[in-house]
Amino acid sequence: MTEPYDMVDLILAKRQGEALTGDQIRWMIAKYTAGGILDAQMSALTMAICFQGMTPRETGDLTTAMLESGTRMDYSGLGAPVVDKHSTGGVGDKVTLVLMPVVASFGVKVPQLSGRGLGHTGGTLDKLESIPGWRADLTSEEIREQLRTVGGMVCAAGADLAPADRRLYALRDATGTVDAIPLIASSIMSKKIAEGAQGLVLDVTTGSGAFLTDPAEARELARTMVHLGEHAGVRTRAILTDMSAPLGFAIGNANEVREAVQTLQGRGPADLVHVVCVLARAMLELAGLPDADPRRALADGSALRVWRDFVSAQGGDPDAALPEADHSSILRAEYDGVVLDLEARAFGVAAWRLGAGRSVPGAPVDHAAGIDLRVKPGDRVRRGDPICELHATDPDRLPRAYEALEGAVSIGDATRWAPAPLILGSVG
Amino acid sequence: MTEPYDMVDLILAKRQGEALTGDQIRWMIAKYTAGGILDAQMSALTMAICFQGMTPRETGDLTTAMLESGTRMDYSGLGAPVVDKHSTGGVGDKVTLVLMPVVASFGVKVPQLSGRGLGHTGGTLDKLESIPGWRADLTSEEIREQLRTVGGMVCAAGADLAPADRRLYALRDATGTVDAIPLIASSIMSKKIAEGAQGLVLDVTTGSGAFLTDPAEARELARTMVHLGEHAGVRTRAILTDMSAPLGFAIGNANEVREAVQTLQGRGPADLVHVVCVLARAMLELAGLPDADPRRALADGSALRVWRDFVSAQGGDPDAALPEADHSSILRAEYDGVVLDLEARAFGVAAWRLGAGRSVPGAPVDHAAGIDLRVKPGDRVRRGDPICELHATDPDRLPRAYEALEGAVSIGDATRWAPAPLILGSVG
Repeated sequence: MTEPYDMVDLILAKRQGEALTGDQIRWMIAKYTAGGILDAQMSALTMAICFQGMTPRETGDLTTAMLESGTRMDYSGLGAPVVDKHSTGGVGDKVTLVLMPVVASFGVKVPQLSGRGLGHTGGTLDKLESIPGWRADLTSEEIREQLRTVGGMVCAAGADLAPADRRLYALRDATGTVDAIPLIASSIMSKKIAEGAQGLVLDVTTGSGAFLTDPAEARELARTMVHLGEHAGVRTRAILTDMSAPLGFAIGNANEVREAVQTLQGRGPADLVHVVCVLARAMLELAGLPDADPRRALADGSALRVWRDFVSAQGGDPDAALPEADHSSILRAEYDGVVLDLEARAFGVAAWRLGAGRSVPGAPVDHAAGIDLRVKPGDRVRRGDPICELHATDPDRLPRAYEALEGAVSIGDATRWAPAPLILGSVG
Repeated sequence: MTEPYDMVDLILAKRQGEALTGDQIRWMIAKYTAGGILDAQMSALTMAICFQGMTPRETGDLTTAMLESGTRMDYSGLGAPVVDKHSTGGVGDKVTLVLMPVVASFGVKVPQLSGRGLGHTGGTLDKLESIPGWRADLTSEEIREQLRTVGGMVCAAGADLAPADRRLYALRDATGTVDAIPLIASSIMSKKIAEGAQGLVLDVTTGSGAFLTDPAEARELARTMVHLGEHAGVRTRAILTDMSAPLGFAIGNANEVREAVQTLQGRGPADLVHVVCVLARAMLELAGLPDADPRRALADGSALRVWRDFVSAQGGDPDAALPEADHSSILRAEYDGVVLDLEARAFGVAAWRLGAGRSVPGAPVDHAAGIDLRVKPGDRVRRGDPICELHATDPDRLPRAYEALEGAVSIGDATRWAPAPLILGSVG
């Protein structure tokens, strides 16, 4: 009984709105990682944080404590700038698949440790795993070697990277305490700082398809994360992007890879290309290449070459056929008019119900399932025109996907249409 | 996956301040009792309840759901009124030991299912276990037989009485979510309604030694509990009592039993006798005996006879010597003046540190350890006069007990003394 603190006292202090000290936070995270604090106690604390918040100092201490629960990578020996990117997630968000090759094509090293999807937002690893043979698990040596030869990689984070965050995130997911800014910020940044990049660009999404639907909250999250990154010695910049409608046309796994490859071939949808280029420019600036032009890398095939090397290096065949679903069904416009809105969250949920996502961590996803849009907001349609095509391996999944899409497509008079900006601002 | 609800949705709804439906609450408690909901999820919900509260309807549904998780006793065949009592706890609170015999001496049946202490408030069972041979565990048949022959009993609640509350209380204790009125009220009332009495008197304490130090909160708790009891068909009355100073002179276990016996012999301290008589009158009224005089039962030995029968029936020797500690130490007045305050909580903590209480459920208590006051608020003292005597089996425990008492004894000018009422009001 030589413990310096009692977890119940820490919970009660936070419940009453007090700030925890750095010592208390370090003790708590170390003890929790070692199994000495009950999940029930930690979830009570995180719920209290949802109501009482954390000061910037506390959020910083939590980030550092989680960072220090594991190892921190070091790529300083590569002799090239190392820049990382993180997105808070969206619907149809295949940005990483295009962005990593674009930035790496300029000689910048891009180590993308990524996650799997849960709920209505897809995971980059799930998308890439639709490529036959491609594998998400790399050893530290393989990561280093691939950064040296290919310039970029996408792989699953090892268990030794911020293990406290890994455990805490799973707990928050099960206990309704995911969306609290200090917890989101410290979770993301503890992992990202551990990844060892010198520069970090954050794609903070907002709108119906994003995690934080309120732009003011997204901006606060961006500010908090930039502060945490800079404090840890990582040059950090956040770009706020709109996720009201799906990005590009494909929502799923294999179909998103197909769209990413088309984009790398210079034939990508305008919104996806725009977001990729804004993020790429920010990453290239942090790497000391303010004049590099990402559009050139898409136009001249240099990004596509990195992509093919990257897929091959991780065991995949860049020319292999991707899985296709046996069943498909077209949703048609009910009115004449202009497409005013395609609500991103509804499309995310529909694709998830078709089998493209999972409800339980560790469950498999159906790589062939998903949705392909045929129109984008601003397009003029006539009653009966196709809005999108739903793909399913199991046709019994179609009805509940259609249910999710009820009310998701707004069609109206052209005078009501005003294009919304895709890039809402930046921090840092 | 045919569950009607997802616990995460219930947590998020409460987090956002919504009321849960009766169906949701019943599902949740049944599922939790069956082990189908994680402790971490339930503690997140209880923390959200600490911030968002529950409506009276929700609190009622929670009480009913916990009640229905176990069995409900039925004493209707005894042919006599059955009245129960519950106290929210205090320091030096040996009321049950006197009250049960007093009320039972009038032919009213008093089934007292009681608990053990944790922290600075003692438990009635711990106190009684200082009597050699006395045992707290009775079977349902023994309870019924003892009510028939003796008229009263005090025993541990069986595992089949509101098992959901048992599990939930242990969880709240470990997660800093004990003091939320809807949770306290439903916890107490689910057990008390299950005990099967037709009438129930609640001793709701307030002041430094009580669970709820704020009188307004205590009154709200009293109102909530009376409402829950009446709604379940139990005639319920709450008496608000002051617990700013310890009740009587003894704080501990064996010494509290000694003081209870003295009180049953007609030689009790005025404050204890007053509280016992107010509560007894309320119980006797609920039993249909508004004219019965509890002071008579203390004066004529009839309550003492019930006590002796009760102790014997549960295996104890009413004439046995009670344990005494080998080490004692006197705390003396530092000034001349009038004792203005003896802070109950500090005395409770000091007795606990001497060994009279436990920090961990299931740990043993030292029946001989405790504190005997030599003065009460309002008494005139001179510098050097004894304030109290500390008793310990292990003398190493004395220094930390003294620490707890620092600042707990206020002595001042007689003009600053005003006696505070012991009974603050009643509800129901």
